[in-house]
Amino acid sequence: MPEFPSSRTRLYVDQPLAVGEVIALTEAQFHQLKTVQRLATGAILGLFDGVNGGFLAELRLEKKSAVAVVTSQSQILEPLGELTLLFAPIKSARFDFLVEKATELGVTRLRPVLTDRTQGDRVNVRRLRETVREAAEQCGRVELPRVDEPEKLVRILEGWNQADALYLCAEAGAALPLHRASKPGRGAVLIGPEGGFSPVEFARLRSLPFVVPVSLGPRILRAETAAIAALACWQAIEGDWQSRPDTQGEA
Amino acid sequence: MPEFPSSRTRLYVDQPLAVGEVIALTEAQFHQLKTVQRLATGAILGLFDGVNGGFLAELRLEKKSAVAVVTSQSQILEPLGELTLLFAPIKSARFDFLVEKATELGVTRLRPVLTDRTQGDRVNVRRLRETVREAAEQCGRVELPRVDEPEKLVRILEGWNQADALYLCAEAGAALPLHRASKPGRGAVLIGPEGGFSPVEFARLRSLPFVVPVSLGPRILRAETAAIAALACWQAIEGDWQSRPDTQGEA
Repeated sequence: MPEFPSSRTRLYVDQPLAVGEVIALTEAQFHQLKTVQRLATGAILGLFDGVNGGFLAELRLEKKSAVAVVTSQSQILEPLGELTLLFAPIKSARFDFLVEKATELGVTRLRPVLTDRTQGDRVNVRRLRETVREAAEQCGRVELPRVDEPEKLVRILEGWNQADALYLCAEAGAALPLHRASKPGRGAVLIGPEGGFSPVEFARLRSLPFVVPVSLGPRILRAETAAIAALACWQAIEGDWQSRPDTQGEA
Repeated sequence: MPEFPSSRTRLYVDQPLAVGEVIALTEAQFHQLKTVQRLATGAILGLFDGVNGGFLAELRLEKKSAVAVVTSQSQILEPLGELTLLFAPIKSARFDFLVEKATELGVTRLRPVLTDRTQGDRVNVRRLRETVREAAEQCGRVELPRVDEPEKLVRILEGWNQADALYLCAEAGAALPLHRASKPGRGAVLIGPEGGFSPVEFARLRSLPFVVPVSLGPRILRAETAAIAALACWQAIEGDWQSRPDTQGEA
């Protein structure tokens, strides 16, 4: 059993993987492996396609391109418990950080939410997906969280499956601490925008039977802090923190 | 009861506060209040000195300076449960982020730790304290976490109070999830450097009776993610997440 996580390079590839396949790497991957990481032909990579699990592959470098020959399967894709983060987009650096952390913490779906006070309606979903991919490569996941197009809060609430709790990280008002309010099943955490929900939104949310207001302690947390704290607690109590394998980073 | 946190400007001042005192604000504070926030004479500020609790004060702007006249006390300083974060310094932007989040999550002491694989021995403690102050102003604390000078891991372990658990966020090996391993009392969370602890350090840590290895789930977390997740869970289970007041941000 290795005492430390392997530092093997892991790459997401956008095509189905199977043993024996020869995978053409992208120009960006070629550059990363050859110039930045200075890997040579024969280096072992971890690959995953988001569907078939994790694989080991051997790098073959050409002058201006690279392929990876898939040699063995190293990890089965086990479906994660569903955990959705619904969040109003925030300022850029903090937003990237939030998305990276949410991916590391095992969310399976990211839903950008447009609220009355959302700053900047234009969410760069492409960049969001890029951040998600990089974080998944880094943290050992073999699937990618789904990233939705931004949607208005009212629409999301109208279409909500009433059987699923929606944990509202409440800035004020009566609320139980998350770890006492949560219940098993699908998890969904809703974080408001930096200026908070509007009074109309807040009243609407509090009137809905599936919305469970939860508290994250006595301090005023920034949106991304609240999201990360809530996701960590949910995973600890209801999610997959019980299930860490003894070895890590093998694909 | 206000439904939303007040957006009142809060400032830390480096002198004892009491009702009736006239506090000379710094040039940076003057600039912030007048030019950035465009406040006028008569605006109500929240002030705290880290010792005497929270106060309300009235701003008086002059041409090139400002004072705040303390009008009332709004918050008592209640001692927080002790929660220490011991962390190996990491790259700059992630480091600032970690320190900000740790402050928001209520750590009372930050101890930079020098390990065998610590990148960059020179920790900018002054900048660290600045980040802590800003985060405390923003999140509604009326005291500041203590920030230690960097110290070597071996020294810290030698001087450790054996009665206090030190939760080691373990990258691999046997470990209980944090929320099942934790116990009431003083909390202390240790996060390794980006390259992990050296094998010698890791063996040493695992041999010490007060070191409690804890798991943070099946994924490989970046150092700052691990720290934030661990602190949030500790506060939820053993710390002050039970004690959120119904109103917030009043000083």
